[in-house]
Order: sequence, then structure tokens, then C-alpha cells
Amino acid sequence: MNPNRFRSAASLRLTLAGLVLVTAGAGLAMKSSWSDDTADSVIFHGNGKAPGCVVCHGAHGEGGGNGAFPRIGGQPAAYLEAQLRAIRDGQRANAVMAPSVAGLDDDRLRAIAQYFSRQEVGTYPPAPEASQARTSRGYRLVMFGDWDHGVPACADCHGPALNGVAPAIPGLTGQTAGYLSAQLDAYRNGQRPANALGLMPRVARGLSPDDITAVSTYIATLRPGGVMEAPAAPEAASWKPRAQSPEDFTPPPDTAIPEGPYGDMIRLGESIFNDTPTGASKYVRNDLSCRNCHLDRGRLASSSPMWAAYVHYPEYRKKNRLVNTMQMRIQGCFRYSENGIVPPSDSPEITALVTYFHWLSTGLPVGIKPPASGYRRLPPPTGTPDRGRGAVVYAANCAMCHGEDGQGRVAGGRVVFPPLWGPRSFNWGAGMHQVDMAAAFIRANMPYGAGGTLSEQDAWDVAAYVNSHDRPQDPRFVDDVETTREKFHAKHRFGYYGRDVEGVTLGTPAH
Amino acid sequence: MNPNRFRSAASLRLTLAGLVLVTAGAGLAMKSSWSDDTADSVIFHGNGKAPGCVVCHGAHGEGGGNGAFPRIGGQPAAYLEAQLRAIRDGQRANAVMAPSVAGLDDDRLRAIAQYFSRQEVGTYPPAPEASQARTSRGYRLVMFGDWDHGVPACADCHGPALNGVAPAIPGLTGQTAGYLSAQLDAYRNGQRPANALGLMPRVARGLSPDDITAVSTYIATLRPGGVMEAPAAPEAASWKPRAQSPEDFTPPPDTAIPEGPYGDMIRLGESIFNDTPTGASKYVRNDLSCRNCHLDRGRLASSSPMWAAYVHYPEYRKKNRLVNTMQMRIQGCFRYSENGIVPPSDSPEITALVTYFHWLSTGLPVGIKPPASGYRRLPPPTGTPDRGRGAVVYAANCAMCHGEDGQGRVAGGRVVFPPLWGPRSFNWGAGMHQVDMAAAFIRANMPYGAGGTLSEQDAWDVAAYVNSHDRPQDPRFVDDVETTREKFHAKHRFGYYGRDVEGVTLGTPAH
Repeated sequence: MNPNRFRSAASLRLTLAGLVLVTAGAGLAMKSSWSDDTADSVIFHGNGKAPGCVVCHGAHGEGGGNGAFPRIGGQPAAYLEAQLRAIRDGQRANAVMAPSVAGLDDDRLRAIAQYFSRQEVGTYPPAPEASQARTSRGYRLVMFGDWDHGVPACADCHGPALNGVAPAIPGLTGQTAGYLSAQLDAYRNGQRPANALGLMPRVARGLSPDDITAVSTYIATLRPGGVMEAPAAPEAASWKPRAQSPEDFTPPPDTAIPEGPYGDMIRLGESIFNDTPTGASKYVRNDLSCRNCHLDRGRLASSSPMWAAYVHYPEYRKKNRLVNTMQMRIQGCFRYSENGIVPPSDSPEITALVTYFHWLSTGLPVGIKPPASGYRRLPPPTGTPDRGRGAVVYAANCAMCHGEDGQGRVAGGRVVFPPLWGPRSFNWGAGMHQVDMAAAFIRANMPYGAGGTLSEQDAWDVAAYVNSHDRPQDPRFVDDVETTREKFHAKHRFGYYGRDVEGVTLGTPAH
Repeated sequence: MNPNRFRSAASLRLTLAGLVLVTAGAGLAMKSSWSDDTADSVIFHGNGKAPGCVVCHGAHGEGGGNGAFPRIGGQPAAYLEAQLRAIRDGQRANAVMAPSVAGLDDDRLRAIAQYFSRQEVGTYPPAPEASQARTSRGYRLVMFGDWDHGVPACADCHGPALNGVAPAIPGLTGQTAGYLSAQLDAYRNGQRPANALGLMPRVARGLSPDDITAVSTYIATLRPGGVMEAPAAPEAASWKPRAQSPEDFTPPPDTAIPEGPYGDMIRLGESIFNDTPTGASKYVRNDLSCRNCHLDRGRLASSSPMWAAYVHYPEYRKKNRLVNTMQMRIQGCFRYSENGIVPPSDSPEITALVTYFHWLSTGLPVGIKPPASGYRRLPPPTGTPDRGRGAVVYAANCAMCHGEDGQGRVAGGRVVFPPLWGPRSFNWGAGMHQVDMAAAFIRANMPYGAGGTLSEQDAWDVAAYVNSHDRPQDPRFVDDVETTREKFHAKHRFGYYGRDVEGVTLGTPAH
């Protein structure tokens, strides 16, 4: 870790508190009179009540004041604009910033946001020092979250390098630990408004004060290259396998993965699970990873966790009328959910995934179905799920991450939010194309990190909306859509394959 | 079941007791004077003290007297001779037979035995009736035994059709239920001597009176075609899967295998396990079945049970320097122990075996090594195991079943006792060729059904004797024996590969 004058995020927070008083009391380099109302003028000269943005945030928005003034350069414009409005309108409490945006209209705020969004920031505040334990905890919160406390991984939404995901999700790199922890505190205390999904206050309330320090400090050490290699995990030695009940199972902590070739294979499986298009590139033809449907790296109860699947297979499946080993079941995911090519059952990819699942299942009895298996099916809806109502639910709850067009979001060349339909999503043979399966998944797990907040009816409707868009052909396709529908889709309630939606017969092969 | 005048084996036993009194009291068709001492004369006319053999046992030794006189025709000569001697010498208490053999020398007894051994018996006593529950219990004792009470399956030693295995093991078909249950009672009470291995008294003491009735009645219903199809298992419904401790695990009863394609796959796996040269004929090039090394169909604790293996894999193995799935581990058995061809990991044979193992493991926690795993290794011997002493142990304890030449025994076209060396046994790459592995196996499991009776030193010595014979080449063979020994065998303590034994370098390729 780089040397730095700050000892810890806690002492930094004290420093910041002092700075806030200093800057609030002083009239720094503000324009002497308020006459020019262009955004540029505000940026460089201020609005007559406070100095120009660049005075505190730097010419390129690189931040300053030892973290009192955050990095805003290069952040998504929509995010910056939303923050400026929230401060102006009082939803985001910020005594320093309030005078700077007072009286600016929406157009000027948007222009300011766009200006800073276009800036490239090359300088970073000095990296703080942190203990090995804190670094390890921070790393794991960034990469894996703490789902036992409802906290998804930072990287899952802020991007694999934490550089943000346009349009709405800010980058976290280039901020000081003090700024980051102050924001988490503000979310926790209601001083910073949640976005529509209400995710960040949930996250902040799931973190202990020590967690906030650890994750803020860790993120402040990151550089544009992205997340560091996994640091040593000091608590690994304390974990011991033990027999557990299927009613209340906890998979082993990631820190318990052993060294050596067996542990390497577990780690390989986990990495393929988390980024399948990269880890199993030979066999994937879309943008989905295993973890998109099996949350918390396949660990999360009621999100079709892999430990529950592992102890269940081999089992007979009506889908292929065969007894399926775990390997064969995974091959099915490649064929349908990955719209891919089936890897050989003894390929390194499949072996690594099976090894990972086996390890996740440590202590779970074989052949007894845990209650957390699969996705808990919803009671039938009243009437047919309504894709029109679903479109409204989608716009409010899903579009921020998955896009209005359902095509997901990419950041730094990697898929952060998966496409839900279209050529880069799962195909018409995947289980998730079934409206009842999707509704169950959505109700339990979406919006990401806020599972259980949608009503059952909303889940049915939005599942119908998502699954009434076209997607890659069912690989079992025979003859024509109608025949294929009869043969493989007739049994699916509310199924859209072969149905006419907005003048198009879904599943029609491309010409 | 065929109609029959006997209601149960219990009532039959009462009938037999009456017959014994009748026959002992009457002087039936015996020779008037004792002058001709040829065996033929004894067989047809008697020895002057009792009538000729055929008077009671029938012209072809088919038996008679409603089971008072057993079927002796077609039985192995050595077995018959041993019985005649035991009766003559008073080790086998039999008041009816004693006068018939009194005063006959060994040569005549051998000639009588050989005569009846050559007879073909085409007639069977009428089959008794039995309840479904009794038939089911009898079937399972014949086919599977009751290892919880130390009882191996009847078929394991008496042959798959219970027609006996030359030279020493009698057939059980063609006998009445009364005769069979009387013999088990006699073994239990010490009225019939054990052979050298002491197995039958152990078996009889492991059976309850109800078991004796069930197995005797069931066997009496069998006809030359061999064992019947599995009868309905009335107790199947009562079993429920439950989480169990790795310390004290019991696999599910065979009666719990479900109906339908999943159950069919379990049964296929079990059948391949029990008769691998038949069930996986494409991939096996010797006479060994999985169950030869994994007793009680892979269920028996400390006999490398498959449930302990199933929860252990995937695991890293030094042998192939790979993380091995269960499938890969089974492939290893085919390559070495079966001296065979490796089946594809998704072949029906491997899938069936994995499905069987998964089902056997029901309720056992994943990834926690049960104490009953593998074969419990013995403490190191004092000095080098002595193949000379081992030869003596072998002759006394192993040769009866595996043959003086170690080539095992076949009956009815099927291997009953596996060859321990030579071209039809496991090859030089199999784990069992290691003297310490074989010693551990033998000590715990041999003689069959009498595991734990040999001393540890005897186990070491006989393991050295068995494994100091030649066998098929190590499939990893490179260049020459010495190189192969260096590469793959140098680490094996007491290993014989590449060693000179009686003037031959073991492992030398055939010219």
C-alpha cells in the first residue's frame, strides 16, 4: 500500500469536519457580482453566492481539500445532475454546496454536470494505509458484499473497477476514504436521498461502522487499474467444516478455500461462475454469467443456490427425459441460458464449476432437498400477467440498471447489468423465459439487493413484460415456430414463444 | 409361487423330525450280508448296517422323504466327500446317516462322492408357499445378505443361481425348506462343523429364526433357472431420507429405490457395480466387479464404501495430478482395477454408477470425510511382509474360494470368486497392487464374511504373497520395467513391480 499521511478513515473524517467549517465560513474566490448566468461562468466564477466549481473541485473535477471536495470529473452526467438538483432542492443535505447551486435552473445544472462528466481525471488523492484485516474485509465487501446482511458487492453495480456505470451510477475510485465513509453515513442517516430503488440506504444500514471504514479505506487505495488482487485472508484458518441442516444451511466463507490445486480449481469455478463470457468464452454466445440468475456467486438462499442443486443431482429431468448428473445440468445452462455451445462434461470448465459447487455444499446432506432450493414459486396471479402494467413496473425498477431497451449496461468493457432480452440474452429454451420462473426469481431477488420489495402482482407483470420480447431461438427448434411451440412450449403457462406481440410472432427465425 | 402341500418351513421341520424317527427305527432295503465293499455296492445296496444311498437319496441323488434326505446329486465332489467324512468321524451329528458310513474308508467315501457329483438332477421337490414379506426378505438375504448382522449374501458364495461352486461349496437349489433350515439350525447350534473359514456358523448366528425360515423357504422355491426377479418390497414406503452423521452413517435400504427413470438409473448403477464385466462389458478386460473390492455393493463401512467416496469428490489426486470428479475417479477404476478401457465421463455406465453412489449417500454431509472411508490402514508390520508365510495363510484362508492358483472360481458361466493375480485380475496400476492397501483391505474384509479374523501380520504376509505374482501391465508403462518402476512405483513400500520373484522380474512385458 502506498504511504500516506492519513492513518485511518476515522481520523480523516475528523479532518473533513474541520474543513467543512472552514470552507463554509470563508468566502473563497467568488465572483464579485452575479451577472453572467452561463454554466461556464458558474463553473469558473461562481454564481455570486459561492465560488466557481473548479475552485474547490479542481479544474478537471479531480476533487480537493483532502477529500472535503469529491472527485466529480468523469462521473456519469445523469448522476451529477441528479446530485446537483437534490442539493439545490434540499433532498441532499450539504451546507457547503447549497449556496453554490442556489438559484440555478435545471438547464444550467445539466450543463455543469455534462461539463464535469466529460473531464478526464488523472490524479488521485494519496492512498490511505490500512491493516491487513481491514483491507481483506474491504476487498470482500467490494467484490462479494455481505449478503447475510443484505449487502450486495459494490462492484456489482459500480462496475468491476468501481469506475461507475453510465448513466446513473457513480464511480467510487478517485474519492478519499473520508468522502466515501461520509456518504455511507449520510445514506444511513437519511441525509442523502436514495434513488428510486432505495438501494444505498439499505446497503449503508447493512454495514457496521467498522465495515464502512474498511470499505471506504479499501476503495480509496484503488487506482484506475481497478480492484486489487485478493489480499491475504487472515481468518481462513478458523473455519472448520461441520454437518449442517438443510433447513438452515450456510456455505463456507470464501476465505476457507484451501491453497493448492484443489483450491485453485474451486477458485477457477468461482471465476467462471462470476464472469462466464470471459471464463468459459469458448462456450458462451451471449452476455450472461451464472451469477446473474444465481445471486451472491451461487450462494444466496432462494436464488437457486448451487449448494441446493449440487446435493439434488443426479436427478431425472422431464426437459431432456434423462437422469442428469450435475455436469449434464450445467451443460443445459450453457445450451439455453448462455445461448451457447455445450462444453464436454469432463472439460476443465465443467469440472471447475462442479468442484466449486461441491465445495459450496460442504456439510449439506446429500439427496435432501433444502427449502431454499430453486426460486420459490409464487401463487398464481389473478388473471393473466399484464405486460402493459409490467412496462410501468420495468421503467420504475429495472430500467436504471438493465436499460430502457433491456440490453443491460457495460462498463470498462465488461457487462455489469445483463441484457434481459434480445440477441445477447438467454434463449427461448432457458428456464428463465418461462413467466412463472421469471416472476419467482424477480419477486425474491429484484431489484438487485432489494429482493422482496416488489408486490407479487408487479413481479408477474414485469416478468410478462420482460419475457414478451424476442430473444435467441430455442435450440430445440423444429420445422417452424408453431411446431416448436407445440412440442416444447405448450405446457408453459403465460408463455410468449410463438405468440403475436405488437405485430410480431415471437420466436420467428431471422430471415 | 407354485402350490404346495406345506404351509411353512416351520411345519415342515416338525414333519422332518417325525421322519427321522421313522427312518432310524426301520431297516430299509439293506443288504442282507456285508461282503461287497466297492463303492457301487454301498451306493446301491448299503454297507450291511444301513440301506444303499439310493434308497433314501434317490437313484440320481435327487433327494426324497419330503426333504428328510437332501439332494446330493450334482453337488461338488469335494463337498460331498467332506460331509461323508465329517459324519463318519462324528463332527457332523447325523443319527440317520451315521450307520450308513460307518466303517467306510476314505477311498470309498471319495468314490461315493464322485458318483453323486456326476449325477444330473432334473426333479425338484414341490415349491413351498410364502408370504410376500417372507419372499421379499428371503430374496434380499440371498442376493444382498444382511451385513449389519455380518451376513453376506448366499449368492456371493453359493453362486449367482445358488447351484454351488466347485470344489467346496454346495448348491442350495433342489433342497427343501425343511432341510435348509435344519442345516442353518445345526450350524447355529454347533451340530454341523464349520469349514476352515468358520463362515456358516457366523452366518447362521447372524440370522433370526424368522430370517432362517424366510431364506430357506425362498431358496426352496428356486428352480434351475436361478434366482427370481426381485419380488415386491412391502416396506419401501416406510423409509424417509434424513440427515445423518458422518460418524455413523447408514445408506438407504435397497427397498427405498424409487420407481421411474431415476430409480431405474440407480438400479442400473447397482447392477453394473455388482457384475461389472457384464454390465459394462465394453470397458472391462478382466473378471473383476466393483463389489469385489467394495463389499456389500459399495455399502459396507471400512470397505471403501461408495457413499464416503461420493461426498469426498471432486478432490485432488496425486496419482493423476488432477482434481478428480467422481466420474474421473471411476474412470481410474476402469483403467486399473478393471484393466479396461476408460468409459466416457458422460457414458450411461458412468452416469449410472454416479447416480447409484449419490443415492447411497442420501443424508450424508458433503465434503466431510467419514471415518469409514477407504480401508483403514494397518500399523507398519515388523520387518518386511513375508510372502512365504503369506503362502501358508493363503492356503488356509483364501484358496478355498480364490483357488490354489489364485485364479478365482466360475460357476454357471459367471465369476463368483475373483482372480487375485494373472491376466484376468487387476493390473499393476491398480491401488490394490500396493501391499499396504491390500493388507488393509484383507484385514478388514477377508475371509469373505469373516473380516477381522486374520491377524495384522497374517494380513501383511498374505497381501505380499498375493501381490508378488504377475498381473497385467501398468497402463502407464514407459520404456521398460525399471523406468516405469522409478516413475510410478518407487514410492510404494514393499512394492513388487519390477522386483525379481522366483527368477522372474514382475511386470516384464510379454514377448
